[in-house]
Amino acid sequence: MYELYYWPEIQGRGEYVRLALEAGGAAYRDVAREKDGTDAMMRLLESPEVVAPPFAPPFLKDGKILVGQVAAILQHVGPAIGLAPKDAAAALWLHQIQLTVTDFVAEIHDTHHPIGNRFYYEEQKPEAKRRAAVFREDRIPKFMGWFETILSRNPAGSHHLVGDRLSYADTSLFQLVEGLRYAFPKAMRKSEGDWPKAVALHDRVAALPRIAEYCRSERRIPFNENGIFRAYPELDG
Amino acid sequence: MYELYYWPEIQGRGEYVRLALEAGGAAYRDVAREKDGTDAMMRLLESPEVVAPPFAPPFLKDGKILVGQVAAILQHVGPAIGLAPKDAAAALWLHQIQLTVTDFVAEIHDTHHPIGNRFYYEEQKPEAKRRAAVFREDRIPKFMGWFETILSRNPAGSHHLVGDRLSYADTSLFQLVEGLRYAFPKAMRKSEGDWPKAVALHDRVAALPRIAEYCRSERRIPFNENGIFRAYPELDG
Repeated sequence: MYELYYWPEIQGRGEYVRLALEAGGAAYRDVAREKDGTDAMMRLLESPEVVAPPFAPPFLKDGKILVGQVAAILQHVGPAIGLAPKDAAAALWLHQIQLTVTDFVAEIHDTHHPIGNRFYYEEQKPEAKRRAAVFREDRIPKFMGWFETILSRNPAGSHHLVGDRLSYADTSLFQLVEGLRYAFPKAMRKSEGDWPKAVALHDRVAALPRIAEYCRSERRIPFNENGIFRAYPELDG
Repeated sequence: MYELYYWPEIQGRGEYVRLALEAGGAAYRDVAREKDGTDAMMRLLESPEVVAPPFAPPFLKDGKILVGQVAAILQHVGPAIGLAPKDAAAALWLHQIQLTVTDFVAEIHDTHHPIGNRFYYEEQKPEAKRRAAVFREDRIPKFMGWFETILSRNPAGSHHLVGDRLSYADTSLFQLVEGLRYAFPKAMRKSEGDWPKAVALHDRVAALPRIAEYCRSERRIPFNENGIFRAYPELDG
């Protein structure tokens, strides 16, 4: 039984792990959402007895292994939950895609916090507006265009990002499209036509029975304005 | 023979790969620094025939394998060049550290480009000043404090970040300290005393014969104001 540790009130970075565990049908506890779970998370982060302390949530406990960083967590659990290819070169490519998701997520976060987390959004609104415009006009097309390109070039077809089977990159792309639609609905309406394969993959992932059930359940935390994707109309197109 | 592809005029993100290859005594070509090398790099990035195109430089060619993302490159070459442990749990921990280096590097970049790369630094100076202050006061202590903590807790002693042998995380930490001293000399003078183990590790890496030779050579591109670390006095403490 995996133990996931992440902030209990947001999807945030933890959601890429939750989605993979759900899609893989893995048994896991979302520890910080249990009673006193956030305390347990903070103890693990701060205890001087943890030899390899994660830098920040999310992190995952798998027996004696404690692993932080979303991409590293997914690389660790991927093969065990059937969401990573066995072939080493394909697994490396999958990981590379996930690392690019990580970069994209950091940029999404910084649209509302371009100065830093010390200040509330309301205290960095002019900077956020300026950064969000660049993000909408330059960065969404760059990242989404790259996903579209690699889907187009996949020798096994454009049903999946890697090979001909579901991987954690597919569930991550689902989350990116979901979140971008929540945070930047106008910008997305204008541009989704430019990456039809990525949108189609999003739709296929959404229709997977395990993902559909998860998204209807209370385990899926709704998007909200404490998370990475925030619906601030003034930051949309 | 590895082929590294990265912008030829800066250390940038490529430097974490260069340093590891140099420390491991690996044979490699720094392709974009050769005649017409940047064209070769752009062809690989843009050719529709590349099935798994990297999102951005740096990337590395190892026979048929093409791999982008610094942390993935290092994970791929680490074992072959003797800079990663054989034990799987230790290798995962090493990778997790490198992913945290990646996050830190992105934040360092954004001190001078908090709005985005569309604008010159001169066009986002007020935002940069505000972000750099938060970076100096909150983020340098957070990241460097974490490196100090994990050095303190290493059961094999604080000579290395992972186990009792040199790894690519050590060469990366060397580069972080070098770069921070270049970009934020005042802030570093004030705070280096708070992480003596990290500074001592920097010094040991600097004294490694291969690294010392590399840093004296023309293969080491000097720091400059097109790179990630930039000496802008107005952004320093």
